Amino acid sequence: MNKILKIVVIGGGSSYTPELIEGLINRYEELPVGELWLVDIEDGHEKVQIISELAKRMIKNKGLCIEVKVTLDRRLALEGADFVCSQFRAGCLDARIRDERISLKYGMIGQETNGLGGFANACRTIPITLEICKEMEELCPDAWLLNFTNPSGMVTEAVLKYTNVKAIGLCNVPVIMEKGIAQIIGADEGDFVMQVAGLNHLIWARKILHNGTDKLSIVMDEILKGNDPLIPSNIPPFNWPQDLLKDMGMIPCAYLRYYYTSDDIMQQEQEEAEGEGTRGEVVKAMEKRLFDIYKNPELAEKPKELEKRGGQYYSEAACELMSSIYNDKRKIMHVNTRNNGTISGLPDDCVVEVSSIITKNGPLPLNVDPFPCDTLRLIQLMKEFETLTVEAAVKGDLVAAKRGLILNPIVNTGTILDEALKETVKENLDYMPQFRWMFEKS
Amino acid sequence: MNKILKIVVIGGGSSYTPELIEGLINRYEELPVGELWLVDIEDGHEKVQIISELAKRMIKNKGLCIEVKVTLDRRLALEGADFVCSQFRAGCLDARIRDERISLKYGMIGQETNGLGGFANACRTIPITLEICKEMEELCPDAWLLNFTNPSGMVTEAVLKYTNVKAIGLCNVPVIMEKGIAQIIGADEGDFVMQVAGLNHLIWARKILHNGTDKLSIVMDEILKGNDPLIPSNIPPFNWPQDLLKDMGMIPCAYLRYYYTSDDIMQQEQEEAEGEGTRGEVVKAMEKRLFDIYKNPELAEKPKELEKRGGQYYSEAACELMSSIYNDKRKIMHVNTRNNGTISGLPDDCVVEVSSIITKNGPLPLNVDPFPCDTLRLIQLMKEFETLTVEAAVKGDLVAAKRGLILNPIVNTGTILDEALKETVKENLDYMPQFRWMFEKS
Amino acid sequence: MNKILKIVVIGGGSSYTPELIEGLINRYEELPVGELWLVDIEDGHEKVQIISELAKRMIKNKGLCIEVKVTLDRRLALEGADFVCSQFRAGCLDARIRDERISLKYGMIGQETNGLGGFANACRTIPITLEICKEMEELCPDAWLLNFTNPSGMVTEAVLKYTNVKAIGLCNVPVIMEKGIAQIIGADEGDFVMQVAGLNHLIWARKILHNGTDKLSIVMDEILKGNDPLIPSNIPPFNWPQDLLKDMGMIPCAYLRYYYTSDDIMQQEQEEAEGEGTRGEVVKAMEKRLFDIYKNPELAEKPKELEKRGGQYYSEAACELMSSIYNDKRKIMHVNTRNNGTISGLPDDCVVEVSSIITKNGPLPLNVDPFPCDTLRLIQLMKEFETLTVEAAVKGDLVAAKRGLILNPIVNTGTILDEALKETVKENLDYMPQFRWMFEKS
Amino acid sequence: MNKILKIVVIGGGSSYTPELIEGLINRYEELPVGELWLVDIEDGHEKVQIISELAKRMIKNKGLCIEVKVTLDRRLALEGADFVCSQFRAGCLDARIRDERISLKYGMIGQETNGLGGFANACRTIPITLEICKEMEELCPDAWLLNFTNPSGMVTEAVLKYTNVKAIGLCNVPVIMEKGIAQIIGADEGDFVMQVAGLNHLIWARKILHNGTDKLSIVMDEILKGNDPLIPSNIPPFNWPQDLLKDMGMIPCAYLRYYYTSDDIMQQEQEEAEGEGTRGEVVKAMEKRLFDIYKNPELAEKPKELEKRGGQYYSEAACELMSSIYNDKRKIMHVNTRNNGTISGLPDDCVVEVSSIITKNGPLPLNVDPFPCDTLRLIQLMKEFETLTVEAAVKGDLVAAKRGLILNPIVNTGTILDEALKETVKENLDYMPQFRWMFEKS
Repeated sequence: MNKILKIVVIGGGSSYTPELIEGLINRYEELPVGELWLVDIEDGHEKVQIISELAKRMIKNKGLCIEVKVTLDRRLALEGADFVCSQFRAGCLDARIRDERISLKYGMIGQETNGLGGFANACRTIPITLEICKEMEELCPDAWLLNFTNPSGMVTEAVLKYTNVKAIGLCNVPVIMEKGIAQIIGADEGDFVMQVAGLNHLIWARKILHNGTDKLSIVMDEILKGNDPLIPSNIPPFNWPQDLLKDMGMIPCAYLRYYYTSDDIMQQEQEEAEGEGTRGEVVKAMEKRLFDIYKNPELAEKPKELEKRGGQYYSEAACELMSSIYNDKRKIMHVNTRNNGTISGLPDDCVVEVSSIITKNGPLPLNVDPFPCDTLRLIQLMKEFETLTVEAAVKGDLVAAKRGLILNPIVNTGTILDEALKETVKENLDYMPQFRWMFEKS
Repeated sequence: MNKILKIVVIGGGSSYTPELIEGLINRYEELPVGELWLVDIEDGHEKVQIISELAKRMIKNKGLCIEVKVTLDRRLALEGADFVCSQFRAGCLDARIRDERISLKYGMIGQETNGLGGFANACRTIPITLEICKEMEELCPDAWLLNFTNPSGMVTEAVLKYTNVKAIGLCNVPVIMEKGIAQIIGADEGDFVMQVAGLNHLIWARKILHNGTDKLSIVMDEILKGNDPLIPSNIPPFNWPQDLLKDMGMIPCAYLRYYYTSDDIMQQEQEEAEGEGTRGEVVKAMEKRLFDIYKNPELAEKPKELEKRGGQYYSEAACELMSSIYNDKRKIMHVNTRNNGTISGLPDDCVVEVSSIITKNGPLPLNVDPFPCDTLRLIQLMKEFETLTVEAAVKGDLVAAKRGLILNPIVNTGTILDEALKETVKENLDYMPQFRWMFEKS
Repeated sequence: MNKILKIVVIGGGSSYTPELIEGLINRYEELPVGELWLVDIEDGHEKVQIISELAKRMIKNKGLCIEVKVTLDRRLALEGADFVCSQFRAGCLDARIRDERISLKYGMIGQETNGLGGFANACRTIPITLEICKEMEELCPDAWLLNFTNPSGMVTEAVLKYTNVKAIGLCNVPVIMEKGIAQIIGADEGDFVMQVAGLNHLIWARKILHNGTDKLSIVMDEILKGNDPLIPSNIPPFNWPQDLLKDMGMIPCAYLRYYYTSDDIMQQEQEEAEGEGTRGEVVKAMEKRLFDIYKNPELAEKPKELEKRGGQYYSEAACELMSSIYNDKRKIMHVNTRNNGTISGLPDDCVVEVSSIITKNGPLPLNVDPFPCDTLRLIQLMKEFETLTVEAAVKGDLVAAKRGLILNPIVNTGTILDEALKETVKENLDYMPQFRWMFEKS
Repeated sequence: MNKILKIVVIGGGSSYTPELIEGLINRYEELPVGELWLVDIEDGHEKVQIISELAKRMIKNKGLCIEVKVTLDRRLALEGADFVCSQFRAGCLDARIRDERISLKYGMIGQETNGLGGFANACRTIPITLEICKEMEELCPDAWLLNFTNPSGMVTEAVLKYTNVKAIGLCNVPVIMEKGIAQIIGADEGDFVMQVAGLNHLIWARKILHNGTDKLSIVMDEILKGNDPLIPSNIPPFNWPQDLLKDMGMIPCAYLRYYYTSDDIMQQEQEEAEGEGTRGEVVKAMEKRLFDIYKNPELAEKPKELEKRGGQYYSEAACELMSSIYNDKRKIMHVNTRNNGTISGLPDDCVVEVSSIITKNGPLPLNVDPFPCDTLRLIQLMKEFETLTVEAAVKGDLVAAKRGLILNPIVNTGTILDEALKETVKENLDYMPQFRWMFEKS
């Protein structure tokens, strides 16, 4: 692999892409990218053009030579690729907003990776991802797929179960946790080892090894004081149950608030929905502003405003991951990969999010100490939701969907679920061909 | 054990007792009861007297000689007992009503064996039960404890984990299912084998073996038609999600409605609470009427009205269990006992509700075929709730309580749970000495 | 199934058959057999004729009317059968003797269900059994297969894994244990519950429930005194390691001597081989004598001499099993059936030998309490040997065979195993078509 | 820990020590050793003096300043130590020779970490090691114990189960495998990742990651050609069963020959015992020669002859491990540590030998992909042997010893085991105080 690398970005018109460009520019010496292909769909043509122009200006500004190409022809882009970054959003932000609003209408938390919204997102995204993978098997069988399309854990599980593509799922949550911890313990990145484990958006930091001691309790004390730099800046403030955390011996990621403080979050979401708008709506407005900024022909670097967007460090993580693979760096990163016994009590073939050594052959997960039984039960429950959702998304199996959703703690069951599910599928029918039978029948 | 048997009833003043008397009368030939001791507390003295008089009339009416004794001195009763039936209610129906009302106030389903109410009931009941067991270890170490005090599964787990008493937990749910199935398939009891498995109030019929075929699908078809004699008469009508059940390959007990139709049940409970009253309130009124009937000096048999009470067949099951043990009958009954691998995926030392052969040495559980993974996850989750609740009840450990409640699908979490939990403990402080530290501290 | 039953015996010319006839005669009232088909192969024609004549005399003697038919046409016999008893011996006793002699030649214990001999027997027997099952699927799909062809556990596993036939494996070892226990504790059969668990020829009695107490330690004391009626009469005396048994808390079956006293048994076998002959040779001579007795036209009952043959109670068990199924007796018997979690730590789809309630729908295993870890390890090891041997027998996979044999504690490994294995296959090539490739290649 | 380090060597008079000295000299820059304490017992005084003089010459020769101290007072040495290297041999080589001869006398393979010899060695070594650990808890509670005293896996398990000492077990087997693999694939150490897993002397290389591909099959091909640099030079040549290895998908360590070629090894050992002597006897002669060389006052470096000794790279590994801990190197090394789910199917609290990242906080094991079932069964069996042996060694429990030995594939059972065990204990009574009760009683 000493040739110049070809990198393909599916969903190249995403507002995150400038961070990715910046990451590639910063690693130009260690990661010799020759071509960067931005792929998007018809509807995203304008946005991907804006991104492409900005990318070119950013690269030129640094005096580097990475060729930036834009295309709507995915096969053309994939041919001979070395790395494929998947960051598309099926149905765009409108679909996310619809998910949120439907969930709220039926009294449930609306969220793009969990609950009813997570189900909808998975059902829209997985079929397209599998299509991409079939093309990869043909056109670039040795390429790595770096998935950060949400729901990242379920999408990666679908790829690893149903295709032969070498895939790794990524998320910015552990990256933000790591940076927050660095700040609390006053250490440089790489100076300490944070080990996380769980599922995507359902992880706990299990160890924080620094200079011969485990600093977990120091970090916990800081969090309990309300000083919590581990929480992504786009998440509104909330309170952990203090006694619970004190007793836990591990640091939950911010998304655990859906389980530990479900009612508070429900109320918060309802207030937001009636006020500034749902998270999707806020992001949509933000994106509009971002693209206005990106259009500026004077702009030749990643603008500050992107940091508020929420996906912070996603692309940074992707670039670091590509470099770690390419250079066999054996850095510890936190990725979604096949379980294979890493977390005891989960099937071998499911996908988990765990700290791993990144090699040229892919991730080698660190072993995870057994979880306390109650935490394990939550992980097992949510993994079963995910696995049934993947099955439903691949096969169009409504009963599998329902069996999964019934387990999910943030989903209401009964008549209301039947109705919410029907509405979800109906409103998304353009993106869920696997469920068209439901409406053909009736 | 060829002597005449001594049977002790803790909570002898219960409105159920006449069914128990009837059961003993019907089995007089096979189960030679010499003395029946009805034990109650000061507050229940009047009720236990009424029951005792009725019992004596019933026995005399049949010309039998069982001595009926009433006492408030539990140790006196326990000395040399052969069977101890536990059917008391700590805090009486008022406590149950309080549980229901607090749960509803905080937007949660109110229920005496599950959720916040189940937690409260366990915390009131388990300390007293362990006290009784300590006395049994001293005064009647060979006696069997037949527990049908709710929450029956958790109470039995506490006894088996923390004492040396030989205990079996009982519930009328499987009995009613068996009778309903007999009706559907047109078979006599004992003619077919129904195998159930799960936890107390969380069981599924796994097999219905009759004349060489498994009649499960026949029973399921009937249930899906809305003809469901497996549901206790005291439970108001509700609808199972049809497609879910069709796909399930096993018959859920009625209490599974809390998981499969949570929102419908929540609404139903709220309507009841605003209308005829909560279940506890309805039962309280019913009990009052029952005791008026029991007082009638002409009455010398179990009155028809008792059947509407809800606990139907409880006492019947208890009598049959005593006879099965005494006579080494090896009948298949459905009991709460130590898991020991019966249900794969649960700890050996937890208590499960499973079909078992009843011998003079106690129950020998039938092996349970592996559960589908999603159902297993629900069972594991609820068992963890139960185990943490038992721990909380025994040790007064509030964090254990919270860790358990957070897992429970019918419990809301966050600020609301903190408040609901605090109110629950405060209102029950007379019955929850283990949690007094919470209010001493502050 | 109120018609008159058709029973088929594969290997009808076996010297055991008179016991089977006696068993059917004794159960004539409860098990209405109309036709008894004795099937054998060309080489066994004379013997099956002798048996058939004896059977007819025995039936006539009692004035019953069971039609006895002899055939070499298996399909004719199987058509419409209700029960198929499999008790054939592929390669006859000569094959068994060859197995024993080859094993001994290479310094290994020679045995028909274990080690190299067990491997050879499985590879001869399983292909024929699967052939029979294919015919059963076509000609009598509702019939039960009662297998007591050795190695019974592996043969039953092959049937349950590779066919749709309803099969139960039987062995006389637990029957003899039960009778020995009855003698020690002075109880009638059916009066107590003996629970065994493990694999075929690798079981332990785990519970001996009698009149409200577990008599296991009483039985153990008697065994340690050297008074051991649990050991089949055909097994020469040997000594259990006393301290090991005292500590064990369960009663091992006689075949466990291969693991607990391997060297003693090896020496015993070598002495026998140089003296009176191997077990197979002794049996062969005995059989010759038996058939001389059977020929006697005056003989109209099972002769006493059969009892020394070794397979005592096999056929008795088979008759009782047929009756238990036919009459839905729900008797506790000890059978080889699908594990399904009965013994924790073994795969669901493997076959185990466990005490079960026999119903018209087949066996319902009693749950088995967790084994001590060291015993479990031995069971897991031997089950893996069995599973790999079944795979080798079905697929002709020599590496699977070797992987299995290497695990087996009574097998020597290395050059010697390669040679012993090659000789075994070569000498049995007529009965092991699946391994012919080995000699075609070279 | 920026002070100058104090390193203690228990068994400082070992012939290996010069390699350790060389390792410390080579790492002087990264591992600032101030004091090196060589501890030995009275009987080893002369040898430790010789070693000490040689060490001083070696250090002086390089112009470094590490203070070398000799003492028989262990407590003095341990006080304030940073690293404690345990490499003593309880009973010296004479005990090892005795073990070998007793095993052979009873027809069993004689080996210092396995079978009867492994049991004897564990029972001599573990009590002393626990004594050392008690002293470490008091005198240097923060020190790391690096154990390479055999049987290294069992000794480390004893320490981690029964003390609070931070301990890591080491072996040279994986080091030699890694060097052999480097040679075959033509890569530098550190350039590729070899992942091993199993138990001490029972490991398999599972992955050989080099430049983006797994070179395992390339290495396997070379081994099958008979070119096997992975086998320690002190092990006489033997043949792997070719078809078995081809099928295995992982590379067994040389000690697996005891299981895969047991009979060949038995014969080899018997021939050696009758010829050049047992391994222990050969080593004893070699050691004598080595000490003659060490005495030479001109000698100021590790002599070439040491390489033939067999323990090659042991001390090298120890030095590298100390440096990895001290410098938080996060190098992948292969160590004995607590399982905690690393190998699925083994208890959490047992010790396994697995590739781990070495941090200042100790080893972080890499997750191990599930083993094929037959290999897992062997590992589980041998771990149970080890765990029971540790229990026997700590408690003097003879039945535990026997239960463990009966499982061990290289142990004969029955009368012969009783005798061999009795002789073993009797001959070692000076070193096995825990078993003195056996001879007091009789």
